[in-house]
Amino acid sequence: MAENGLQPSNHTRHAAGGAGLNTGYCAVQWLGDRLRILDQTRLPAQEDYLTLTDYHDAATAIKELKVRGAPAIGVAAAYAVALGALNIKAQSYDEFSAGLKTVIKDIGATRPTARNLFATLERMEKAIAGLREIEQIKKALIAEAECIQAEEIESTRLISEHGSALIKDGDTILTHCNTGPLATTGYGTALGVIIKAQQQGKKINVYADETRPLLQGARLTVWELCKAGVPVTLITDNMAGWIMKQGKINLVIVGADRIARNGDSANKIGTYSVAVLAKTHGMPFYIAAPTSTIDTSLATGDDIVIEERSPDEVTHIQGIRVAAAGC
Amino acid sequence: MAENGLQPSNHTRHAAGGAGLNTGYCAVQWLGDRLRILDQTRLPAQEDYLTLTDYHDAATAIKELKVRGAPAIGVAAAYAVALGALNIKAQSYDEFSAGLKTVIKDIGATRPTARNLFATLERMEKAIAGLREIEQIKKALIAEAECIQAEEIESTRLISEHGSALIKDGDTILTHCNTGPLATTGYGTALGVIIKAQQQGKKINVYADETRPLLQGARLTVWELCKAGVPVTLITDNMAGWIMKQGKINLVIVGADRIARNGDSANKIGTYSVAVLAKTHGMPFYIAAPTSTIDTSLATGDDIVIEERSPDEVTHIQGIRVAAAGC
Repeated sequence: MAENGLQPSNHTRHAAGGAGLNTGYCAVQWLGDRLRILDQTRLPAQEDYLTLTDYHDAATAIKELKVRGAPAIGVAAAYAVALGALNIKAQSYDEFSAGLKTVIKDIGATRPTARNLFATLERMEKAIAGLREIEQIKKALIAEAECIQAEEIESTRLISEHGSALIKDGDTILTHCNTGPLATTGYGTALGVIIKAQQQGKKINVYADETRPLLQGARLTVWELCKAGVPVTLITDNMAGWIMKQGKINLVIVGADRIARNGDSANKIGTYSVAVLAKTHGMPFYIAAPTSTIDTSLATGDDIVIEERSPDEVTHIQGIRVAAAGC
Repeated sequence: MAENGLQPSNHTRHAAGGAGLNTGYCAVQWLGDRLRILDQTRLPAQEDYLTLTDYHDAATAIKELKVRGAPAIGVAAAYAVALGALNIKAQSYDEFSAGLKTVIKDIGATRPTARNLFATLERMEKAIAGLREIEQIKKALIAEAECIQAEEIESTRLISEHGSALIKDGDTILTHCNTGPLATTGYGTALGVIIKAQQQGKKINVYADETRPLLQGARLTVWELCKAGVPVTLITDNMAGWIMKQGKINLVIVGADRIARNGDSANKIGTYSVAVLAKTHGMPFYIAAPTSTIDTSLATGDDIVIEERSPDEVTHIQGIRVAAAGC
C-alpha cells in the first residue's frame, strides 16, 4: 500500500480518492481552476467524469448525488466554494463578499443531513476572516479546500488503520450503504476499515446491503470491494436479519452522516434496522466516521434534520416505475 | 360486501379471487377445460390474463411467479393437475395413471417452500383413490380442484373475519409481501384481515414493505389496497425499523408459506427482520394463514426447505442490471 501520494501538510493538488489507495478512480479532483468528479449516479454501468467550471453545477452534483457520502460532500462543497469565488466578477471587496455569500448559501442548500457540508462551509468562511484582497481570498479558499481534502484523506487513513484492529481473521462483516473512497475521497470510513483489514492479510468476507432506494450498496460498495479484491456478497436489505440469525455475520460496520454529542448517529435509511438486528443477535455494531461528522451543537439525535427525498426514488428504479401508482 | 357468489358446498365454477370481494380481478379461474390466470409478474403495469390449455404452461406460471402466494399456488396446482389429466391420451388405466404421475411430479417440482402446493397434490391423489375409470377420474380431479379453491376462499373469508377483530379503529398496520386476493384467489390472509377491518368502517392506515427482490409489496399490495380503498404508504424494506421507532406503527400482520408444528413459520425473505423489529418495539406481530399452510410433518422451522431463487432477481430489476457485476 503506497502512501507517498499523501501530503497533507502542503496543500498541493490531490488525485483524491486514489491517494495511497491505488484505487484507479478519483471521486473528487481539483484541477487548479476546475472541479472534476466521478458521476456516482452512473456507476457501475459507466465510469463518467464530469469537469465542472460553474459552482451551480457543483451544487447540482451534490444535490443529485453525483458526489455523495458525508466526507466527499464536504470536500466537493469546499471546492465548489473555491470555484464559485474564482468566477465572481466583482469591482470591490463588498461586491465580491456579497457574491461569495450567495455561493455559500447555494451550496449549503443542497443536502440537509451531512454534517460535513456545514462544517466545511463554516471552515471556508473562517479561512478568509480578516482578508480583504480578492485575489488573496480566492487563493486562501482554494488552499483551504485542498487542506480539507488532505485532512479527510488523512483522517480516513487513520480511521482505516485504527478500525482494522477490530477486524479478526475469518470475520464476516455486514455493511450498509457506501463508505469507501467514493464516499470520502480518501480511504473510506467503514469500507476503509474493511479494505485495510484485507490488506493486512486477514481473510474476511463482506455482506453488502443493497441499500434501497438508490442502491448505493449494490452499485457502489460491490464495485469498490471488487476493485479492492475483497470477497463480497450482495443482499437485499431485508435479508440481513435472516443471515444474522443463521450465524453468518460477526460484526456490522457502517458510516455516519452526522453524530450528536451523545453519540446518536444519523445515517442512510435502514441503518437503524440493522443496529436493532445486530443487538438482537449479540454482535458488535460499529460506526466509523471522521470528527468532521460530529456536530457538537446537537445534544441528541432528535435534533438532527433527516433528509427526505422525492417519493419517485422509491416508486421508480433507474427511471422505470416499479410500484403501483398511488391512490 | 356481497358473498352470494360463494358456494363452497357444490363444486361449481368460481370466478376466483373475486367471489364476494368484488375486486374486479381474478387471480385463478377454471373455465371448464382451461385455466385462466392473471399474470402477476406484469402487474401493476399491465393486467394481462393468460389462458392455459397445457399443464406445462401452468407449471411454468407457478415457477415464474405469474401466479404466487401459498394458497393461490395450491389452487393453481390443483387445476394444473386437472388440466394435465384432461389432456392425457391413454388407452388404459395404467397408461393414464403413469401419465398422471408425471403431471403431479412436474407440478410438485415448481416451488419448494409453499406447503399448500404439496398438500394440494396429496389431496388430488387421495380424491381419485380407488377410481379406475379414466373419465370418472378426470371429473373427480376437476371437482376436487374446485373444492380446494372453494375451501381456500371460505377459509380466507373466515381468516379475514376473525383477524379483523384484532384491528382497532385508528390502527396503523405494517405488512410485508402480498397476501391479498391475488395471493389466495379468495379474500386474502393478512391483507384480507386489513381489507375486512376497513370494510367494517375502522379508520386504518397501512405501511406496505416494497418486498425486494421481486417487489410484491410495491407492485401487488399497493395495487390491491388501492383497489380496496385502503390508505397505503409504500416504504422500502429498510424503512420499517425507523418508522416503528417513530411510533407510527401499531401492529404487523403477514402471511406464511409454511408453518411447522411448533408454530415456526416460513415466509418471504425479510419477514424475520420485521418480526425482530416488532418485538424490539413492543408491538404485536400476527401471521394470518389457512390450515392448508400448516405442515404437521415438521417439528420446527429448521426442517422447512427455503426456496432460493436466481441471483439475477437481486442484481437485476425488471431485466435491468442495477448492481455492480460480481468479481
